[in-house]
Amino acid sequence: MARERLYLYDTTLRDGQQTQGVQFSTAEKLKIAAALDALGVDHIEGGWPGANPTDSAFFEEVGQTRAVLTAFGMTKRAGRSAENDDVLAAVMNAGTPAVCLVGKTHDFHVTTALGITLEENVGNIAASVAHLVASGREALFDAEHFFDGYKANPSYALSCLRAALDAGARWVVLCDTNGGTLPTEIGRIVGGVIAAGVPGDRVGIHTHNDTETAVSGSLAAVEAGARQIQGTLNGLGERCGNANLTALIPTLLLKEPYASRYETGVSHEALEGLTRVSRMLDDVLNRVPLKQVAYVGASAFAHKAGLHASAILKDPTTYEHIDPALVGNRRVVPMSNQAGQSNLRRRLAEAGLEVAPGDPALARILELVKTREAEGYSYDTAQASFELLAREELGLLPEFFEVKRYRVTVERRKNKYNRMVSLSEAVVVVKVDGEKKLSVSESMDEEGNDRGPVNALSKALAKDLGSYQAYIDDMRLVDFKVRITQGGTEAVTRVIIDSEDSSGRRWATVGVSANIVDASFEALLDAVRWKLVRAGAA
Amino acid sequence: MARERLYLYDTTLRDGQQTQGVQFSTAEKLKIAAALDALGVDHIEGGWPGANPTDSAFFEEVGQTRAVLTAFGMTKRAGRSAENDDVLAAVMNAGTPAVCLVGKTHDFHVTTALGITLEENVGNIAASVAHLVASGREALFDAEHFFDGYKANPSYALSCLRAALDAGARWVVLCDTNGGTLPTEIGRIVGGVIAAGVPGDRVGIHTHNDTETAVSGSLAAVEAGARQIQGTLNGLGERCGNANLTALIPTLLLKEPYASRYETGVSHEALEGLTRVSRMLDDVLNRVPLKQVAYVGASAFAHKAGLHASAILKDPTTYEHIDPALVGNRRVVPMSNQAGQSNLRRRLAEAGLEVAPGDPALARILELVKTREAEGYSYDTAQASFELLAREELGLLPEFFEVKRYRVTVERRKNKYNRMVSLSEAVVVVKVDGEKKLSVSESMDEEGNDRGPVNALSKALAKDLGSYQAYIDDMRLVDFKVRITQGGTEAVTRVIIDSEDSSGRRWATVGVSANIVDASFEALLDAVRWKLVRAGAA
Repeated sequence: MARERLYLYDTTLRDGQQTQGVQFSTAEKLKIAAALDALGVDHIEGGWPGANPTDSAFFEEVGQTRAVLTAFGMTKRAGRSAENDDVLAAVMNAGTPAVCLVGKTHDFHVTTALGITLEENVGNIAASVAHLVASGREALFDAEHFFDGYKANPSYALSCLRAALDAGARWVVLCDTNGGTLPTEIGRIVGGVIAAGVPGDRVGIHTHNDTETAVSGSLAAVEAGARQIQGTLNGLGERCGNANLTALIPTLLLKEPYASRYETGVSHEALEGLTRVSRMLDDVLNRVPLKQVAYVGASAFAHKAGLHASAILKDPTTYEHIDPALVGNRRVVPMSNQAGQSNLRRRLAEAGLEVAPGDPALARILELVKTREAEGYSYDTAQASFELLAREELGLLPEFFEVKRYRVTVERRKNKYNRMVSLSEAVVVVKVDGEKKLSVSESMDEEGNDRGPVNALSKALAKDLGSYQAYIDDMRLVDFKVRITQGGTEAVTRVIIDSEDSSGRRWATVGVSANIVDASFEALLDAVRWKLVRAGAA
Repeated sequence: MARERLYLYDTTLRDGQQTQGVQFSTAEKLKIAAALDALGVDHIEGGWPGANPTDSAFFEEVGQTRAVLTAFGMTKRAGRSAENDDVLAAVMNAGTPAVCLVGKTHDFHVTTALGITLEENVGNIAASVAHLVASGREALFDAEHFFDGYKANPSYALSCLRAALDAGARWVVLCDTNGGTLPTEIGRIVGGVIAAGVPGDRVGIHTHNDTETAVSGSLAAVEAGARQIQGTLNGLGERCGNANLTALIPTLLLKEPYASRYETGVSHEALEGLTRVSRMLDDVLNRVPLKQVAYVGASAFAHKAGLHASAILKDPTTYEHIDPALVGNRRVVPMSNQAGQSNLRRRLAEAGLEVAPGDPALARILELVKTREAEGYSYDTAQASFELLAREELGLLPEFFEVKRYRVTVERRKNKYNRMVSLSEAVVVVKVDGEKKLSVSESMDEEGNDRGPVNALSKALAKDLGSYQAYIDDMRLVDFKVRITQGGTEAVTRVIIDSEDSSGRRWATVGVSANIVDASFEALLDAVRWKLVRAGAA
């Protein structure tokens, strides 16, 4: 039997940006959109053009995508035509193939919040959708407060949906705007809408997590016949967030009855990148990824209970409902036991270090990783620093050069035009090839902008490393992440630096200190040492 | 009509402790148990006596509780009597009024993991439960892997439940041990168990959050007739956690159809303490409370979207599914570039700034917030910086003092004991009361540790501000958050600083620059200026 198509509509860039403390830059939006497109969602809602400068810039810069790019806006206001509504015009001007317009369907909101008649509201919906369709766009009508509206006045709520559909809307999206509707009721109401004649393959569901049931509410709507699911990566969104696509997608692809009944635009191959996509978003947000989240969390396949851990070694299906590799995640078994050592050996082998089972260095490395991680280091992310630590313990790390001292100065003062300007200067002193070398650099880039003290330090460190200089000339710092974390009893700074060389290879290193500059320097130093190891310098 | 009783069984202290990275001390267990008891749960499962020293100590020290204290263990092993099983004896020795024993009900696990016959397993369950009942304990049978077992061999799974009930078990608890069963199937199987003759008021449900549906799975079981719910505070637990009681309890007490149909041991008065209980647990775990969690999160009633914020001002029920006070939480209307003028006026009013609707300054402030947020600023977190920006635009911000220049040096070198040490030194020059003042500070704390350049700058800035000094002497920097973001075309650093004074008041300020030290200085400066405004300095 052919499987029915379910459509995934992502609103990470619009509703996800309603998360308290989240404000994407245009570049971040472009990065997230590219990941969503590779994942295979059907629609990417990019924002509300005109309401927010980064939203407008995103639509200008995004280019071609496989997913249908969608702009969000609201139905035209009363007292003017759709053509003459400047808010709607700004949305249309983004030129996206699809437009999703929010409108009211709850009679109470129409009369109290909008202060217009019920008929005027229906007219606004119809005219706005017709305007989209006339200009060749795919039209979606986002029915705000639909579930509360349906409970209060089902025939009015339905008449709003019909107005949109009759005007040519491809989808009517039933929104549980305040997140208060529980899954059973969502299922009942979606069933009622479809029974009233709205085709299920034109019904979308948009839930919020205010009762921790947004994922189940979406599933209940699908079971009742809805065929589009709206949600966000990592469940970002207003208040408690939207339906979490990072949990829904694996359930739809891997779990019954969904896997046999439906298909989506996400392939099983793309699903294997899901954990990476989720971590990428946390990275953009500079958030520590939550461990206990479904499918993609670092603890999602961690077996702490002794009974579970030993059974897992006999047969993983005993305590795992899916194979973690299917979503790009991995099994974690406490470090202390046999499995901890075999994990470590596999990781070392990935770095080209073959260590025999039972080698006492393995236990020493495990212990060291544990101690350092308690201090704030994070070797999951900084694989290159992990490799250096292991090499040192195995006696496989040449010294290369020694840093004797460094000094960085950050200064801010008025320049000769009486404008405040800042500048950093770094001096690094190394002993290399038996010789002491002093290097100095400043933080000014080619355009005359101050790039700060870490930039100056990085340039001074890589300026003259004697016989090693040739190996590092093609290195550059491509990303720099800072996090305040708890190391022992004091807050410390963790810096992760991503470096790249001309071969396109990228590696991440970590530094930890109460002093942010010092933490950065440690990570810079590891970046250079790793490059020298890989280049075969000695 | 009388409401039916639902029973709440808390396993924070047992299954909750299976969370990766969680290990409670006895004192912490006692504190959590006291909070659970005050909340009104029916059972408190304290741990597995004999398996863990803090579990045994907890049962010795806990004393009298209103909730039924419950010890956890496993059914007796094959080849010995219940009386002669030392693992079971250790559990009994805790002397709790109730004991919950886990046992197998999935035929595959009986034969492969235990390696005994299906009949032997049924005999072990019956003998273990009979032993509990004979010693006057309330007996609970925890049916491990029940849902998978029922799907594989329903008659065998049911025979295990019957063995427990016939031996006198008060409850049989259906466990979805690997978290793989979705709510609809949970409802169907619980319904099947009850239809097969097991009374619903002796059926418990125990779900895990591996598909982000543990709360809904519990609700589906209740709808199918189960009358005990097992879960944990904040959803702690093995892998992705257990069913979250912090979300389930408000739903059962406040939302329909549950509120009218059922009653629990939790009063509405106790419910008002729920947010506090949730934060207390995070405090014990030394975790930053998650903002986006249902009911009790700091963002659960935060209205960022401009349309929502303006409607909330007219009528809170428009975008809130419950009154936040019912769970001890509160409404937040943060500042952001989605905010409309009404949101802005409300934020200004909170800062004591009454601005008339339509005042042209409102549009200027909104525009400025938008521009600054595009550059990387984030005013919904940094409320104090927002207030300063608004005051400046309204002509209500005194200049106080002028920063002429600053310089910070970070140095790392060997000390006289040949150890690498780092130290930062900051000089800040201000003009205050018509006088130029130079202040210098270093980054060493009382224990001789380098706290970094921002610490040195903060101390130098606050060292001598002339007539303003008395106002800022009780200020201290309590948190410092850094992220790299995209401002315009270049990566910039955003720094958020939290400050506190002796009254316990906390405020957040923001700075943005390509230079991390400069961004920090900007946020520090705002922190001082805000304090001077609030202190009424002029």
